[in-house]
Amino acid sequence: MESAALSIEFQMSLLLFLSLAGYLLASRINQSATIGAILVGVLVGPSVLGLITYTDFVQSLAHLGAIILLFVIGFEFNIRDILDLRYGVIGLVGVIIPWIGGYATAVLFGLDFPSAVFIGTALTATSIAITANVLKEIGVLQTGAARAIIGAAVIDDILSLLVLAVATDLVVSGDVSATSVVLMLVKAVGFIVVAGAVGYFGIRKAIQRMDATPLAQKYPEFVFIFAMMVAFLYAMSASFVGLSGIIGAFLAGVALAGVELRQSKGVYEGADYFQIVFASIFFVSLGILADIRALTSDMVLFLAALTVVAIVTKVAGCGLPARLMGMCREDSLIVGFGMAPRGEVAMIVALIGLDSGLIGQSVFVVIVLMSLLTTLITPIVYRNWFFRGAYCAVE
Amino acid sequence: MESAALSIEFQMSLLLFLSLAGYLLASRINQSATIGAILVGVLVGPSVLGLITYTDFVQSLAHLGAIILLFVIGFEFNIRDILDLRYGVIGLVGVIIPWIGGYATAVLFGLDFPSAVFIGTALTATSIAITANVLKEIGVLQTGAARAIIGAAVIDDILSLLVLAVATDLVVSGDVSATSVVLMLVKAVGFIVVAGAVGYFGIRKAIQRMDATPLAQKYPEFVFIFAMMVAFLYAMSASFVGLSGIIGAFLAGVALAGVELRQSKGVYEGADYFQIVFASIFFVSLGILADIRALTSDMVLFLAALTVVAIVTKVAGCGLPARLMGMCREDSLIVGFGMAPRGEVAMIVALIGLDSGLIGQSVFVVIVLMSLLTTLITPIVYRNWFFRGAYCAVE
Repeated sequence: MESAALSIEFQMSLLLFLSLAGYLLASRINQSATIGAILVGVLVGPSVLGLITYTDFVQSLAHLGAIILLFVIGFEFNIRDILDLRYGVIGLVGVIIPWIGGYATAVLFGLDFPSAVFIGTALTATSIAITANVLKEIGVLQTGAARAIIGAAVIDDILSLLVLAVATDLVVSGDVSATSVVLMLVKAVGFIVVAGAVGYFGIRKAIQRMDATPLAQKYPEFVFIFAMMVAFLYAMSASFVGLSGIIGAFLAGVALAGVELRQSKGVYEGADYFQIVFASIFFVSLGILADIRALTSDMVLFLAALTVVAIVTKVAGCGLPARLMGMCREDSLIVGFGMAPRGEVAMIVALIGLDSGLIGQSVFVVIVLMSLLTTLITPIVYRNWFFRGAYCAVE
Repeated sequence: MESAALSIEFQMSLLLFLSLAGYLLASRINQSATIGAILVGVLVGPSVLGLITYTDFVQSLAHLGAIILLFVIGFEFNIRDILDLRYGVIGLVGVIIPWIGGYATAVLFGLDFPSAVFIGTALTATSIAITANVLKEIGVLQTGAARAIIGAAVIDDILSLLVLAVATDLVVSGDVSATSVVLMLVKAVGFIVVAGAVGYFGIRKAIQRMDATPLAQKYPEFVFIFAMMVAFLYAMSASFVGLSGIIGAFLAGVALAGVELRQSKGVYEGADYFQIVFASIFFVSLGILADIRALTSDMVLFLAALTVVAIVTKVAGCGLPARLMGMCREDSLIVGFGMAPRGEVAMIVALIGLDSGLIGQSVFVVIVLMSLLTTLITPIVYRNWFFRGAYCAVE
């Protein structure tokens, strides 16, 4: 064990050191910590310095990180956010248009079918975390446009996970007939409905009952371990039925969102501590994986085109429905640009594609960089063009 | 990644499920959760059911678990507990006598030198957690005898880690001359003093200063990530100078014990959540590793002898100094039996020996089972023999 032991301790301290460097960099360039971690990963990885490589251990940690990240994102999910029909329309159109845009752009640049499907899928997801953070930083989280963005982004994330499920199935089976697409859609929706119902009506209740037992009084950590087990069990079940594990983890988080415990240690709090460590490692490892030397000049052109398409399709796909449903022009644009940042979900889509061998290294790098670029652009647009004067009401 | 992904999710949910089963078993048989987890591990491991084996991933997690466990134990360490000379004497004699007893018993049973050294070392450590828990359950945590036990157990743990450091070095180098033993002792003490001083006067202060910066205000998780990095960095440094990684993790915990943060997320709280998950996994994995089929009838006899020696040497080694320093007969026996439970440190010693190839499977199993047995006996002795009437004052 001596060398393995040294290795684990060494890798853990190095990865955490790099996360910290990511925070410092993010703070310096005034960007989110996620971007800082990825940039540090790119810097120390084979792209630039070549100081660190992607070991099996790092891969396992990053995989844990993606699962825990989606579990925690699920926790922050508010079921009321998706009950507003307007947000639903904005979210739905804002998934369809970017998917078509991404797919078409990839085909235009001569990429193969699996790559085009993954690129389309990567374009669908809006990063709730990044968008909400930008809105919070600018101090406009309470406006109608901001609420529309967050509501639509939540719906967006669910639809993206659905698209991911269908897309992966589609590419793996190679069967693109209408029947099979419908079947996959039914399977994915079926899993989401069944797992969601079991989680919300079964496991959530079970946890609350568990919390009231003498066992929970004696062992306040029992419920927390149970909740973590549920997250991994859900991830496993999702994998088992052919969906991505992160969909399961997300559903587990949604099922437990806002659960109130009296005797036990906080489930959300504990999961958040795990997310702090493992999501940081996940983002650093994404940067390490994103070997920008894999980009040919053709791919750089493709990256530029895809980034423009990514922004335009979200601005149009979300802004237009907003305008049609009665928002003023400025608010509609605010919603459109607010939906533009892709984030962790797009990157996880890319990682799933890469790890399963369905997309190549260069497509992976393009998706990660596209995701980064869309994230950088929104705050700039917001700070310079919007939120300077008054804006119209959404209600 | 598909199979590896399934595997990680599957292994995590299975291990957490087994931890939960350990809690249920512990609660049923009225023992600590640690014992429950180990027994469940034995049950599902190759010993009995053979449902699960010790994979690389499980090994990595268990290794993380040992490091985080000692980090958290370090946190609970109170520097004032070792400043009482009486506790120091009880702790010191209570390390020397059991070491000699364990070593002699092993030699008597014809075991080789490395095994004898590891067995002696495993007999030195008292489990603070288990002892304190038993005292708490019986409701006598505030008596003088209880305070003596806890104070001496803390000193005991530090001395045990020191003995582990010297013993490992001794066995690896094979050089048992007095000069080399002294040199190793100097190296181990040197590391503890230097790392302790750097930690307490450098890193502790750095964390407090960090906590006051705008960065910590913006990112309340920054200090927590930093503290976790320090734990692994210390573990790595200890490995680097030839000591066990857990010694470093323990020192990192001691250095940060009781540090007060104003803006940042709680370091101790977060580390404790990690400990809940990873230490559970660690104990389950110990049970899985402890393949009791490795025990020949000779080794069963040895186990019985060693367990008796383990209890007698602690009762004598700690009870006698207590009596000589003025405690009454009953309190001295209470102290002696209170120091008898070995626990996580003894098991980690066994795991280090096994992983480094210095001890065999059967010796590993003997140490784990001896550690379990000593833990089972103390509560029985306490509940039936002591704490029934009045006892004398220690002061």
